[in-house]
Amino acid sequence: MDHMPTSIDLNADLGESFGQWSMGDDAAMLDVVSSANIACGFHAGDPMVMRRTVTAAAERGVAIGAHVSYNDLAGFGRRSMDIAPGELEADVLYQIAALDGVARAHGTRVTYVKPHGALYNRIVRDDEQAQAVVRAVRAFNPELAVLGLPGSRFLVRADAAGLRTVTEAFADRAYNADGTLVSRSRPGAVLDDPQVVAERMIGLVRNGHIEAVTGELVRVDADSICTHGDSPGAVAMAKAVHSALRDAGITIGAFAGQHSTEPQER
Amino acid sequence: MDHMPTSIDLNADLGESFGQWSMGDDAAMLDVVSSANIACGFHAGDPMVMRRTVTAAAERGVAIGAHVSYNDLAGFGRRSMDIAPGELEADVLYQIAALDGVARAHGTRVTYVKPHGALYNRIVRDDEQAQAVVRAVRAFNPELAVLGLPGSRFLVRADAAGLRTVTEAFADRAYNADGTLVSRSRPGAVLDDPQVVAERMIGLVRNGHIEAVTGELVRVDADSICTHGDSPGAVAMAKAVHSALRDAGITIGAFAGQHSTEPQER
Amino acid sequence: MDHMPTSIDLNADLGESFGQWSMGDDAAMLDVVSSANIACGFHAGDPMVMRRTVTAAAERGVAIGAHVSYNDLAGFGRRSMDIAPGELEADVLYQIAALDGVARAHGTRVTYVKPHGALYNRIVRDDEQAQAVVRAVRAFNPELAVLGLPGSRFLVRADAAGLRTVTEAFADRAYNADGTLVSRSRPGAVLDDPQVVAERMIGLVRNGHIEAVTGELVRVDADSICTHGDSPGAVAMAKAVHSALRDAGITIGAFAGQHSTEPQER
Amino acid sequence: MDHMPTSIDLNADLGESFGQWSMGDDAAMLDVVSSANIACGFHAGDPMVMRRTVTAAAERGVAIGAHVSYNDLAGFGRRSMDIAPGELEADVLYQIAALDGVARAHGTRVTYVKPHGALYNRIVRDDEQAQAVVRAVRAFNPELAVLGLPGSRFLVRADAAGLRTVTEAFADRAYNADGTLVSRSRPGAVLDDPQVVAERMIGLVRNGHIEAVTGELVRVDADSICTHGDSPGAVAMAKAVHSALRDAGITIGAFAGQHSTEPQER
Repeated sequence: MDHMPTSIDLNADLGESFGQWSMGDDAAMLDVVSSANIACGFHAGDPMVMRRTVTAAAERGVAIGAHVSYNDLAGFGRRSMDIAPGELEADVLYQIAALDGVARAHGTRVTYVKPHGALYNRIVRDDEQAQAVVRAVRAFNPELAVLGLPGSRFLVRADAAGLRTVTEAFADRAYNADGTLVSRSRPGAVLDDPQVVAERMIGLVRNGHIEAVTGELVRVDADSICTHGDSPGAVAMAKAVHSALRDAGITIGAFAGQHSTEPQER
Repeated sequence: MDHMPTSIDLNADLGESFGQWSMGDDAAMLDVVSSANIACGFHAGDPMVMRRTVTAAAERGVAIGAHVSYNDLAGFGRRSMDIAPGELEADVLYQIAALDGVARAHGTRVTYVKPHGALYNRIVRDDEQAQAVVRAVRAFNPELAVLGLPGSRFLVRADAAGLRTVTEAFADRAYNADGTLVSRSRPGAVLDDPQVVAERMIGLVRNGHIEAVTGELVRVDADSICTHGDSPGAVAMAKAVHSALRDAGITIGAFAGQHSTEPQER
Repeated sequence: MDHMPTSIDLNADLGESFGQWSMGDDAAMLDVVSSANIACGFHAGDPMVMRRTVTAAAERGVAIGAHVSYNDLAGFGRRSMDIAPGELEADVLYQIAALDGVARAHGTRVTYVKPHGALYNRIVRDDEQAQAVVRAVRAFNPELAVLGLPGSRFLVRADAAGLRTVTEAFADRAYNADGTLVSRSRPGAVLDDPQVVAERMIGLVRNGHIEAVTGELVRVDADSICTHGDSPGAVAMAKAVHSALRDAGITIGAFAGQHSTEPQER
Repeated sequence: MDHMPTSIDLNADLGESFGQWSMGDDAAMLDVVSSANIACGFHAGDPMVMRRTVTAAAERGVAIGAHVSYNDLAGFGRRSMDIAPGELEADVLYQIAALDGVARAHGTRVTYVKPHGALYNRIVRDDEQAQAVVRAVRAFNPELAVLGLPGSRFLVRADAAGLRTVTEAFADRAYNADGTLVSRSRPGAVLDDPQVVAERMIGLVRNGHIEAVTGELVRVDADSICTHGDSPGAVAMAKAVHSALRDAGITIGAFAGQHSTEPQER
């Protein structure tokens, strides 16, 4: 980011209900975010949930991202797996395809891909799996953006492959002085004061840096801010960040653009 | 069929392997059929199998159909389910979308939909589920054809909804005088002599009728002939039908057209 | 019931969480019921949830029942399936075995079996599937009781096979004059006033009848009362029934007995 | 092994079919082995397959082991997973319980546990997961034996926990001079000459050592020999080993004992 933006994207994980089980307050979060990472059936989400979520997102002009995952419903995609790159590539392609087709049937479409959970974390460093995800995205549609951690193998490989890369910061996480996240196992790793978090995010958007846990200002490259909606407290914090950014004159808008209103041919 | 065709489609169920488990001789069958009903992951098929099968079909110019099913891997989609129409519609939409996206990533696409197993049989008579499948196909792409049993609620509803309907006959099954299939529980229901079957199919294509188990000639409306490839004997029979039709001067070609070579926009 | 009991069993469906998804307030319900119908992984419940639930039940002296289901996580076991009797028998046996083994590893055991959802409803009338469930229970352990609807094919077949049968009434449902439940599609089918429900249940236990929706007193054969805990309102009603019964001097206790401390042979 | 045995166990993976998909020639292998590692539904095997396999094993006096796996049907349990120890423990307990209950319903029982695929390999070194599997086995029944790789964390932890440990050698694999297996990625890692393999196994049983790929004799601690049955060639090799051992006067018998006919208490 050579100059500071006056706008930022807010993203959150949505559509994570499954069958009879509900998760999160999607309706509330869709009023807050500009980009919805929507589960595709591998860690959460079923075809009914997917339809409902893409429809609700489209109604509010929220961009739709495929939240692709390892095939692990029982573990909610949170267990890292030694999957062969070819299998991972096929699994990711299948998920993007399924969500995009469901979205198109409702007049909208997938504009970006964000890996979920253990896959997200793994391809920060696992180059083989990172490449597999990149190949799947390109094979499906090279116009799709990818959303991930700045400096991750995933974004490095995506960039090299000509994909548009989008970086994100985490609203409720503490940062080390080197720009990495403070491990969840350390005290203070997760921030819970909405006002503190909101102030940090305003500073991030305006100045491109954030105060590290050790007090230094650390440069953080973020085109999007990741928020959560899986608990009442999380929704409250997301709303606080949203309001504070707006009050500070910062526009909240999807990096990936909303569904174009021009006719789509297939 | 007002006039007798000089060409006919041959279709078969393909891509029914899953993970470490193989099923059928897809390579052999792809040299025989003009339309491949490809499993979409709900009764069989996984993303790797789907990629492999669409690629192999495209290489041979075989049309690709989404072989949509109840969500029942353990039962191979052969157990009828009282699923709510909205859930069935979403499940079918998801499956078509997944296969079509995988196909497009390999330069081809889905051109038709054929319900599998228990769903196929159920929507012969179950009007609610038939309508749900029709809604899913239309929602995804109203240009897709649907393949089913002549006179079924499924084809009646599809036709009323403006979808192109394609009828099929079963190569290895005996027919009653009223045009219905002899129940599998009756002796003689399944034919096993490739030459007899091949002769019957030539007669069907040329004259539009087939000899019933009771000796009468019965009119059968068939744009496609369904063959099987799940055993060595089944493959041999499919090959015999294929050869006999060709020797009789009948062209074998997909009803749904192969993948168009014009650029596809999405 | 030849004489009116001074005690009754209360049962509820528990352990219906799965992976990251929670359902119901099991802790609250375990203070109310004497028998816990615990999901075995086919419609809900995973091995972690099963361990947690059997442990919590055992701590409170609540009897443990295997809540067996069709294999349908996506549909929560609420979709009737045309499954072959042999497959159903094996599926039910597997589920009882898994829960019982988990229970034994925690010093307790399964004492009864209650079919869940669509399976429960189906074997009211489907004799073949009813027999399959009975065969599975007997094959595992003929000492297990079975819990079901009075007059159902399931209980008729179980009784004929020498199993102990236990009947249940539904606390929050209206009854027709013939003893059947008022269909959920009719107004007034589900009762929502805890005091009304509690009064009805006291009457049921004391007198063996309940007031039908048309005003008559109808005889209802119930060794157990089924309550629900899947919503705050449901928990409140279960608590109200529990308190009212206790205040009326009726003992709440498991029909199936708690885990005996004597050595168990199999 | 302080003295050389005149008997040895042969084990193989069985019951790996699923639904409509067949795998392996279980009938042939049950005539060869003395111990059957039977899939429990997590990587393969369904309740019908499990019933069929335990019944066939019991008829031939073959010992029944629970072949426990990560929950990964799509990957056939061959993908290592970062699963939390508590979840792994519960998953393993569930699988042993399910198979044991199915076995008991058919008059037999599980006498040992062998981890499958990626789990087997992982707990050679992963101490946390090794302990989790050991805890599950002990929780279910501390009389069960465990079968694994000599020197693995799994057997070390099992031994420390008081479980009976059983070591195995691999009939068709080349060994390094340090007793480890030659990696499959190296030429010559897998042996395919039945006579060579049979000779090696006779030497192993008689003398307790095997010729390494580099020519030295290496001591191998093996109470059981693992053979495969997943291809016609594999079955032929298993038969060759079986015959050669018998011809050499070596008795083939289960380490874990067959199902005792005395009453079993738990």
